[in-house]
Amino acid sequence: MTSATNDQQVTTVQELLFDKRTEANDISLKAMLNADPVLIDVVPALDALPGMTRRTILTSGAPLPWSAYEGGQRRAILGAALFEGLADSFEEADARLTDGDILVRPCHDFGCVGSVTGVTSASMPVLVVEDKVSGSRGHCVLYEGGARERLTYGVWNEAVHRQLVWIKDVLGPILSAALRYGGGVRVSPIIRRALGMGDDLHSRNTAATAVLFQQLYGPILDAEGSSGAAREVLDFLSRNDLFFLHVAMATGKSIADAAVGTPHSSIVTAMALNEREFAIRTAGTGKRWFRAPIPPLRAKYFDGITAEDTAFMGGESLITETVGLGGLSAAAAFSLQDYSGGSAESMVETTLAMYGITHTEHPQWRIPSLAFRGAPFGIDAARVASTSVTPRIHMGAALRGGGHAGAGLLIAPVEPFLEALEALDAQAATAP
Amino acid sequence: MTSATNDQQVTTVQELLFDKRTEANDISLKAMLNADPVLIDVVPALDALPGMTRRTILTSGAPLPWSAYEGGQRRAILGAALFEGLADSFEEADARLTDGDILVRPCHDFGCVGSVTGVTSASMPVLVVEDKVSGSRGHCVLYEGGARERLTYGVWNEAVHRQLVWIKDVLGPILSAALRYGGGVRVSPIIRRALGMGDDLHSRNTAATAVLFQQLYGPILDAEGSSGAAREVLDFLSRNDLFFLHVAMATGKSIADAAVGTPHSSIVTAMALNEREFAIRTAGTGKRWFRAPIPPLRAKYFDGITAEDTAFMGGESLITETVGLGGLSAAAAFSLQDYSGGSAESMVETTLAMYGITHTEHPQWRIPSLAFRGAPFGIDAARVASTSVTPRIHMGAALRGGGHAGAGLLIAPVEPFLEALEALDAQAATAP
Repeated sequence: MTSATNDQQVTTVQELLFDKRTEANDISLKAMLNADPVLIDVVPALDALPGMTRRTILTSGAPLPWSAYEGGQRRAILGAALFEGLADSFEEADARLTDGDILVRPCHDFGCVGSVTGVTSASMPVLVVEDKVSGSRGHCVLYEGGARERLTYGVWNEAVHRQLVWIKDVLGPILSAALRYGGGVRVSPIIRRALGMGDDLHSRNTAATAVLFQQLYGPILDAEGSSGAAREVLDFLSRNDLFFLHVAMATGKSIADAAVGTPHSSIVTAMALNEREFAIRTAGTGKRWFRAPIPPLRAKYFDGITAEDTAFMGGESLITETVGLGGLSAAAAFSLQDYSGGSAESMVETTLAMYGITHTEHPQWRIPSLAFRGAPFGIDAARVASTSVTPRIHMGAALRGGGHAGAGLLIAPVEPFLEALEALDAQAATAP
Repeated sequence: MTSATNDQQVTTVQELLFDKRTEANDISLKAMLNADPVLIDVVPALDALPGMTRRTILTSGAPLPWSAYEGGQRRAILGAALFEGLADSFEEADARLTDGDILVRPCHDFGCVGSVTGVTSASMPVLVVEDKVSGSRGHCVLYEGGARERLTYGVWNEAVHRQLVWIKDVLGPILSAALRYGGGVRVSPIIRRALGMGDDLHSRNTAATAVLFQQLYGPILDAEGSSGAAREVLDFLSRNDLFFLHVAMATGKSIADAAVGTPHSSIVTAMALNEREFAIRTAGTGKRWFRAPIPPLRAKYFDGITAEDTAFMGGESLITETVGLGGLSAAAAFSLQDYSGGSAESMVETTLAMYGITHTEHPQWRIPSLAFRGAPFGIDAARVASTSVTPRIHMGAALRGGGHAGAGLLIAPVEPFLEALEALDAQAATAP
């Protein structure tokens, strides 16, 4: 019977695809799990990022034409142009951006990830995290500080400018000196400790920042003595509980990039937002973005702020979820319950659901509330597609007019995962 | 009917007692909850503790005759005598202790609490925590460091001696200078933060120590610059995750002492061990100890150590449970599950059981896994007596021959609580 034979053949092809994908996922996961990320330096983006130029401004998410950036992400890009002296006014900057004289490019194509608007320009210092095994490097600008108004959150004004100058002239160089003097800081053990201390490493980095401070104060004093500038840097590190977030992000990028370009692998290597879209990449589909509109954020806002006051303006801190942290490790961070599901129980359910769409459990990063089970690691687009369970993401919320508004839980849309899987299937069917 | 009338009279007397006790407990609890403990200084015990002399050695627990100290607590007392230059050998020290020429006294009678053996002698620096509301002060020697062999754990040798000299000559004076320079450190907010970061503040103080470090490095640099000695102190504080335990202990003492001497109050103000006995005090019975043999510790030991290798040698870190921390807040510290019941679930059960024997919930110290419910606070001997549920205590384990052996869970014996209640009833019956 012909139809039975056809069915059998189809099954066989699917089985072959499945075997090929399983093998590919094992390879990409192995690269990610073997990673030994070390924070080695803090360097101006121009020097750190291959392909970076003085006229390039990096921003979060899958790329859009310049004219499509309309809100906070647009303001932040214009602000960065002024910060770099590429224009003297928003109008001039807009004209040069329209002409293509100033280039807007996605962070992810430059070994970089961005926080919210993600704006990264030539003179901004970036954290350099190197995976000592694969050699892949991840980068991220420094945390801008606790003020609600930051370039990160789509604000450009004199106070923002002054803070960026201080970061460029004081914070960056002193951290660079300390890291070079001290030989760098291994990041994975800090993440391990912080998961045992209530951090998810995305919306909460309080413990990781404190542990990093215990490791960095010595090299800072060794490299700089207790000068006024060194004390300013120590003060900044000791007061900003989210400082480590950007270290975790650069680390996530260095880990995820170890898997990029594994043919047939359905492991997710990037999740990112621009103002309009949620988008992903997989190990097997390289630099191609799979996009969908962003669903609403389930957020808790600061006093007096409502959902109507807020807007998406990009974000790539989702790289922490990409490597098993953030919403995937919600059950490690019950202090965040008001921002993530409402209760400790719901956070446990969140993490348990994530085991259903990930490929393995991290051998070192463990969650005490789940009997030290390893963090769900390696989001598999194929499992997302077959279960329709999508990644749960912890993230910050931004005010429409610029500024930090709160934090919440984003449930990723399923479409990009389905499309990525179609692309992988098509590739596999035609590949040798 | 006479018997009915008698019954009625008895009931009325019990009701009166109950009202009197409830009112007294409200008073003692209010004093404890109002406390605003501040770490204000580090001072030699001789200067800090009223009644202290050069020939006095304080130790943990209800007092025993000198001849009854036979194990680690005896060795530590002899070691302290040598440390103070009161004798040149254990034999000479023993003779002077036997003659009463050197005095052994309970820490708790001197506003002090001791860790394990609890040995505190004149020249040892003690942390001074003052409750800014009641003015009561609690004291505790400084954490001795991470070496398994310490005077705290019943070891006296050259390395222990050297470390105690460094603590006396370097650590104590520099911390004193920093605290005086910086105006002291409010302790309650640190405890609040640490409970949200996986500490129970007894067996685990990792987060509290890191947060304290973020607050102390600045005053240390201000007071001492980045001299070699200041760097040694910073290094010590950044590496010893249990440093804060002794701050928590001095804090617990300052809080509990705010309630001492409230007539008729059945709130527990001290729990302490000597080598042989578990003992308690209540607010209404003042300095009287109610004692019972120590039940076995349910411990997890370091590699290669078994229960047979261990012995009790005192301990007053139980003051943390006395103020709602440690085992009472087990549900805050799932990282300790291997040392406390075996699972996160059992730790939740432990804390839930503790609500049944405590008078209230702490308004600031909250437990994320229990929907931010306040820590069970104010152990009520009357509730222990009526339920037979006794305090669950997290504590360290000691090697018989001296040294740190592991940690575990101690379930307090019920007898001291029953006896304390009898004494309170007897007092109440005769009091006006």
